[in-house]
Amino acid sequence: MFARRIDQLSSSLVRDILAATKRPGMVSFAGGLPAEEALYRPDKLDAGLLANAWQYGETEGEPALRAEIARLGNKLGIACTPAQVLIVNGSQQGIDLVSKLMIDEGTPVLTEAPAYLAALQSFKLFGARFCPVSVGPDGADLAGFERTLADVRMAYLTPTFQNPSGYCYSDAERDAVAAALDRHDALLFEDDPYRALSYDGEAPQPIAGRLKSARWVYQGSFSKTLAPGLRLGFLIVHPDLITPLTRLKQAADLHSNRVSQTIIADLLAKGELEQHVASVLPLYRERRDAMATALQRHLGGHAHWQLPAGGLFFWLKLARSCDTMALMRRALDAGIAVMPGEPFFPNGADASYLRLNFSHASPEQIEQGIARLAQLLNAD
Amino acid sequence: MFARRIDQLSSSLVRDILAATKRPGMVSFAGGLPAEEALYRPDKLDAGLLANAWQYGETEGEPALRAEIARLGNKLGIACTPAQVLIVNGSQQGIDLVSKLMIDEGTPVLTEAPAYLAALQSFKLFGARFCPVSVGPDGADLAGFERTLADVRMAYLTPTFQNPSGYCYSDAERDAVAAALDRHDALLFEDDPYRALSYDGEAPQPIAGRLKSARWVYQGSFSKTLAPGLRLGFLIVHPDLITPLTRLKQAADLHSNRVSQTIIADLLAKGELEQHVASVLPLYRERRDAMATALQRHLGGHAHWQLPAGGLFFWLKLARSCDTMALMRRALDAGIAVMPGEPFFPNGADASYLRLNFSHASPEQIEQGIARLAQLLNAD
Repeated sequence: MFARRIDQLSSSLVRDILAATKRPGMVSFAGGLPAEEALYRPDKLDAGLLANAWQYGETEGEPALRAEIARLGNKLGIACTPAQVLIVNGSQQGIDLVSKLMIDEGTPVLTEAPAYLAALQSFKLFGARFCPVSVGPDGADLAGFERTLADVRMAYLTPTFQNPSGYCYSDAERDAVAAALDRHDALLFEDDPYRALSYDGEAPQPIAGRLKSARWVYQGSFSKTLAPGLRLGFLIVHPDLITPLTRLKQAADLHSNRVSQTIIADLLAKGELEQHVASVLPLYRERRDAMATALQRHLGGHAHWQLPAGGLFFWLKLARSCDTMALMRRALDAGIAVMPGEPFFPNGADASYLRLNFSHASPEQIEQGIARLAQLLNAD
Repeated sequence: MFARRIDQLSSSLVRDILAATKRPGMVSFAGGLPAEEALYRPDKLDAGLLANAWQYGETEGEPALRAEIARLGNKLGIACTPAQVLIVNGSQQGIDLVSKLMIDEGTPVLTEAPAYLAALQSFKLFGARFCPVSVGPDGADLAGFERTLADVRMAYLTPTFQNPSGYCYSDAERDAVAAALDRHDALLFEDDPYRALSYDGEAPQPIAGRLKSARWVYQGSFSKTLAPGLRLGFLIVHPDLITPLTRLKQAADLHSNRVSQTIIADLLAKGELEQHVASVLPLYRERRDAMATALQRHLGGHAHWQLPAGGLFFWLKLARSCDTMALMRRALDAGIAVMPGEPFFPNGADASYLRLNFSHASPEQIEQGIARLAQLLNAD
């Protein structure tokens, strides 16, 4: 009665947990929501600025915004022109479009293990067969990359403050992965939403700009730096890919919202994106450090973790084997939302991880929430 | 190197023609663009109204907007609750989501012949096999519906001021099609973007509300009534469909733009949508009538057409067999953009049609453009 792919549409855990977090009094470490205080909220929206935002627009995006994004890309070492930029409705649409471009039933796709949950869900919907390579606190498994890249059409990577592990590939790892992609001529899909949220100095430049021959898609988003409600992200892509991706975007929704595009193009032109990010970093750093302190105080014996240098998450390996799906449900009953690690592993897997978001709760809520989580683990 | 579906991604004629219409001095009858004068352009966007538009939102859409749209649906005879409403980025995203829900490689889909071009493109991308039923000035082929519905999983219809033919199904035809859908238990996907643009009285109520047992998706859009740049449309769906469609929406882009949703929910609550539409109908009626006059004056011997009671298009059947793709190219050289009829036919077909949009050009441009078109046809 439905298309076969609908069998792959499991209920999204993220969605269900986010729904639960709306209950009053809930402390949420579950989502990847920016702090309310960090959202870009314009005082007023100028009707003059928006005068040309109402008619149908170009599928690729507003020319002024594409030009600004090409400038951003070049600053990051990705040699590109505005013609290589495609504006999308946040990163998730970029994932949908690249899935459509690359994935048939059974197409082998390299992903990190663990990897970004909602990307795995999209790839699976289109029939991907996952070929995972381990990435985590001890680094990226470079031998695994070399071995696995021989068999895949595409590699999906989030090398900078990875979601969920928080890991940031070193310069040497990036060079090695780029060389392996070139050797095997596999397409790189580099998803980079957290780069600007860097708390201890600048992250190494993207892998996309280090490639010599392999084709690539580099993705960025304004959801973490400005406001998710604007639903705006971008792809910068190898010249071979812009035409099919633009046609896929046209078939998906003609073009992206012009009000959001106009607001963001204006901000970028005035240099206000960087100012806004600089103004919110201290808040995020404070919350990260508050969570580090609370974890040390309450979960020292229960789990291992590393201090994330950027992004929005701590990634905890529990010391004892633990059914984290059951733990999550008990935590919800106790008023804390946490994300079990299991769904981040492409082929199911090691259940003894938790992902904890530190950006949305206040330092006081972080202290209380981690203390309650420790009580649950102690009661085990 | 790409997924197999990319072979189905032909260059979009619409896109190429729209690009050509940007040349200075071009008179465009090609697209389906609202008149610039008819676009909803807020004088100012109130920061207070938008205070909650910046964080991540719900996949289904803003609750206030869904409630307003359920009210609209019920007024149109579609018994529904807000829980059956899914907000999308304009109609094209609704088409993408329903394609994903229903279409596998080879799935038989009933479409009108002619049918909306961009829907055909999306269905084809997902592998649909087209089962066309003829619809046009002489009515809908009810025997064709009865015969074809036995073989398909879904029927995609635009019964109200159809694009491209302008045809509006009568009450009796709607009842007959609804009964046939029920008999064959085929899903109805009713696309209804032009309903409000009705120039000679109200259109008959949708087919969706006439069904007794078959499942259905009813789609509306704010692109033609307010502003395409807001990129907002909606689905109202049979209760069985809301969960899988919501999950598909989540995988496609998490949720729709909250700025647009907030603006439109506010307009609907204040009754300003109807006021805005009432204020622009005279302009559209004037342009339709200007095109009718110009066609009569210049193309009386060359073509047949009917006065469209709504929507944005005249559908011309040329009296002599004519390569309208070649005509289109010659017209572009002469500064007029027209849409050849061929791509609107699901399995290729009768080439002797033209679709002419009357909403975007001024009455003076309409007179000049039709006169030039007649010169081209006379020179044949």
